[in-house]
Amino acid sequence: MAQNIYDNPEFFAGYSQLRRSVYGLDGAPEWPAIRALLPDFSGGRIVDLGCGFGWFARWAKAHGAARVLGLDISKNMIARARADTSDPGIEYAIADLDHLDLPEASFDLAYSSLAFHYLQDFDRLVRSVHRSLTPGSHLVFTVEHPIYMAPTHPGWSVDSDGRKTWPVNRYAVEGARRTDWLAKDVLKHHRTIGTTLNTLIGAGFAIRHVQEWSPTDDQVAGNPDLADELERPMMLLVAAQR
Amino acid sequence: MAQNIYDNPEFFAGYSQLRRSVYGLDGAPEWPAIRALLPDFSGGRIVDLGCGFGWFARWAKAHGAARVLGLDISKNMIARARADTSDPGIEYAIADLDHLDLPEASFDLAYSSLAFHYLQDFDRLVRSVHRSLTPGSHLVFTVEHPIYMAPTHPGWSVDSDGRKTWPVNRYAVEGARRTDWLAKDVLKHHRTIGTTLNTLIGAGFAIRHVQEWSPTDDQVAGNPDLADELERPMMLLVAAQR
Repeated sequence: MAQNIYDNPEFFAGYSQLRRSVYGLDGAPEWPAIRALLPDFSGGRIVDLGCGFGWFARWAKAHGAARVLGLDISKNMIARARADTSDPGIEYAIADLDHLDLPEASFDLAYSSLAFHYLQDFDRLVRSVHRSLTPGSHLVFTVEHPIYMAPTHPGWSVDSDGRKTWPVNRYAVEGARRTDWLAKDVLKHHRTIGTTLNTLIGAGFAIRHVQEWSPTDDQVAGNPDLADELERPMMLLVAAQR
Repeated sequence: MAQNIYDNPEFFAGYSQLRRSVYGLDGAPEWPAIRALLPDFSGGRIVDLGCGFGWFARWAKAHGAARVLGLDISKNMIARARADTSDPGIEYAIADLDHLDLPEASFDLAYSSLAFHYLQDFDRLVRSVHRSLTPGSHLVFTVEHPIYMAPTHPGWSVDSDGRKTWPVNRYAVEGARRTDWLAKDVLKHHRTIGTTLNTLIGAGFAIRHVQEWSPTDDQVAGNPDLADELERPMMLLVAAQR
């Protein structure tokens, strides 16, 4: 099963203060890039895998989705998502994505933001999602980039030109990575880009777009700290079609 | 145009002494992985983009290809490829892949090993290759992995555990990279995995397999130096289908 770090009080308190928790989708710098990858979902049924506080579910419903099902392992997050939502077309449920079974051909879009890297069994999830989608419909998701996740000691150093540099090692060694981010011993699962894409292809998805997210010039001008993201990608965005 | 570094005498002398130059395909540790990605090409016409000394062309002809066209920018390499080949089903020609025009629907497999990262205009090449392939046929290629190519100062360091570590920066900054490998000022062109795959998809290819090459346990047992390749990938292998 996936580690439920979001119900760790220390982690949840820290997470709740991130820009993306306070400001929602507009607090996430990768959101414009994700939005550009979304298909037309007017009148469609959406499942959000790892829905957190429900920001995407509410946005999607407000932008034409017929129904949205938000799933998350965290009781804390589902409780707040429910408290913040009063739309009968949006439903939330607690679910461990590592043991998820979705009804067949019941969604027109599967969406997930920064959740799949907590899963031990990505192949199982992808097959379950594929079955749950109607033919021709889409899966759009983001995960932590394997460059970001691979190293034994993630963290910046500086090269001989003074340029920030990210220390990659253990890239080909897939599996558990434990880091201290917001709390001690957060458990994630490292997979190469190759494995992520081949898992999708093996389940029957066509790859539509792969983006190793980096900020636009305008974003860097507005927030110079984002320039670090040009040095190494933190996130991988994938659009696939059943 | 692509830099023709292979006709630099110093580079050519160094390149000619690499294991892959002396022993051919079996001298390249990634060859078993490439071979596993090749479709059945019996009776088919193959174009090898950056054919070097012609090892693959001869192997493919010996394994059932009807005809093989090997193209390379290097006069030195084409001269040796011709000298080493006496099969009328194999033809070699000097060509800059950055300005290549291939006849329409004239090949059943396009193959390329470690050549495309020398190209400035990958999109142009991919569209030309797509047009030259018969419907349903395949493109299988390898390039230097962007993790390997991105940094301003490529080269190993050691982390606090004594583990070899590769310094990634400028990953999102695509374009020219000049390095000293076998000769001074070798010019390559860095592209993210996302750009490589999206270029293929945009030209009409379906992505079939993506592999960030790493050695098998048996390969590391036979050649312990290959263990470094587990720390960061040097090569990206891609199989796509028209």
